[in-house]
Amino acid sequence: MKTLASLLLAAAASIAQADPLPSWKDTHSKKAIIAFVDKVTTPGSPDYVAPAERIATFDNDGCLWSEQPMYFQAFYIFDRIKALAPDHPEWKEKEPFASVLKGDVKGALAGGEKALLEMAMATHAGLTGEEFDKVVGDWLASARHPKTGMAYDKMVFQPMLELLAYLRAEGFKTFIVSGGGIDFLRVFAEETYGIPPEQVVGTSIGAKYELRDGKPVILKTPDSLFVDDKAGKPVGIHQHIGRRPIFAAGNSDGDFQMLEYTMAGDGARFGLIVHHDDAEREFAYDRESHVGKLARGLDEGPDRGWTIVSMKDDWSRVYPSAP
Amino acid sequence: MKTLASLLLAAAASIAQADPLPSWKDTHSKKAIIAFVDKVTTPGSPDYVAPAERIATFDNDGCLWSEQPMYFQAFYIFDRIKALAPDHPEWKEKEPFASVLKGDVKGALAGGEKALLEMAMATHAGLTGEEFDKVVGDWLASARHPKTGMAYDKMVFQPMLELLAYLRAEGFKTFIVSGGGIDFLRVFAEETYGIPPEQVVGTSIGAKYELRDGKPVILKTPDSLFVDDKAGKPVGIHQHIGRRPIFAAGNSDGDFQMLEYTMAGDGARFGLIVHHDDAEREFAYDRESHVGKLARGLDEGPDRGWTIVSMKDDWSRVYPSAP
Repeated sequence: MKTLASLLLAAAASIAQADPLPSWKDTHSKKAIIAFVDKVTTPGSPDYVAPAERIATFDNDGCLWSEQPMYFQAFYIFDRIKALAPDHPEWKEKEPFASVLKGDVKGALAGGEKALLEMAMATHAGLTGEEFDKVVGDWLASARHPKTGMAYDKMVFQPMLELLAYLRAEGFKTFIVSGGGIDFLRVFAEETYGIPPEQVVGTSIGAKYELRDGKPVILKTPDSLFVDDKAGKPVGIHQHIGRRPIFAAGNSDGDFQMLEYTMAGDGARFGLIVHHDDAEREFAYDRESHVGKLARGLDEGPDRGWTIVSMKDDWSRVYPSAP
Repeated sequence: MKTLASLLLAAAASIAQADPLPSWKDTHSKKAIIAFVDKVTTPGSPDYVAPAERIATFDNDGCLWSEQPMYFQAFYIFDRIKALAPDHPEWKEKEPFASVLKGDVKGALAGGEKALLEMAMATHAGLTGEEFDKVVGDWLASARHPKTGMAYDKMVFQPMLELLAYLRAEGFKTFIVSGGGIDFLRVFAEETYGIPPEQVVGTSIGAKYELRDGKPVILKTPDSLFVDDKAGKPVGIHQHIGRRPIFAAGNSDGDFQMLEYTMAGDGARFGLIVHHDDAEREFAYDRESHVGKLARGLDEGPDRGWTIVSMKDDWSRVYPSAP
């Protein structure tokens, strides 16, 4: 058994060594990632980390898939508000719902995160787990991004898919730690990223157990909100994973504390920030963006030893379907 | 890669087939477990389940380790109250703390679950994640069970350790889903059961992220109580795992809803109840017990297709150290 397992791992490692990250240009970022992985996975290395402790956490919006012109889950929420409107005549007079129904996105988002969370609660609660999965799955299958015309789950970053696969081949356990809804993410995370539901941490609302026509179901409830963003990310990591990551990737100041917490652990650590500086192939935004604002990470990240990845300079490809 | 992986799995399966459960007598319970595992893991079987969906959940108290004369975590809480008493002069006059300090266990537990949770909150909050791990680890290393004189983490059930290992060898992912404290369980679950922190679901209190002398820590806080028991167990499973188990094991009516939820899914399912009927080698209790009460499970379990495991008749050994 031991021998076969070792052979298998060696084979995986040797395949990985061919070029584990083909969509990454041969720049500092790629070299830094590979050097880190080599040192924590090489037995006998002073930086060696046992497989069980190779925890890697990834933000989703703007880190694994795009997030402009607004979080993709917000498109879902808006579509869902429109679909549910006939059952909610009061929404015509009530903000932010009224703006959504008038097609006024700017007005709908004027209330900031609070308004978005209110709409998320109203549209996510009241369904069973299975019903929610189906509604989101159907939406993902039919909805298209307003600018690219692509399905949202095709607007994922090929270099990050390669990074996830590379880390897993090297014995890491990969997690999503996102401000997005945990159940929303779980609908596509396994197929899209190879990350199973139990390795998804996200913003959550309450749930209760009940018998519906004698059949046990989980009903999502509009309470017990946990916001897995900013200082909430290390908290979500503690509650769900129970172990400090050794690798964390994000792209906005909402990921600052996750990287700070990760990097403060003992031994070798890797912090990665995806910088959206590629207006041609994706979007270019940072300090002034209403979504995915990145300022403190740019200012302090390099001195903290974080690797700032330039989409423009470090990636030879952005989306899987791109040439 | 494929070939090596298949060989590895085949080798694991063949080793397992030698006798995956040597501490289980050759009775109906053992046969039922093996028959279930065979049918869900055999490719081409009408009951085949893909590895990613082979989720198995286990209660801890009374299912993986003993729970008499009271939950082992209650011993920890009582010891901790005594240790912290100098900083809490008010406890001398305040129940249930006053009873604990007087050594009156019955009085301390008179307030039932509510009193226990109050004491848990008071003794678990206020520490960082790392501090809590150390305090519990030190306690486990030194505390001894009042009846057996054994360390608490040696009072685990050898047949259940074998069952956990067998399921994992067959591609299952094993989780603890316990009414016990999630962070308490995580201190010993990996070494004792081979279950990593991220696969532990339990009762939890709040946590917050803060910088302490510039170092990021998670501080456990006395709020946001989630009780992972009874109808809370399927909720905990939904929030943490996000997928309905196909195998669930418990021992008390606190596990009823977990088994009910598990068994109600489509396809082959397995529900297991450990019945404590072995006063000689462990403890005998069920309907009238103040800890681990089992009545509804005994009444309804068999008709629901649950397997009721008799410690006395189905297990050739209880604790690993026993002959």
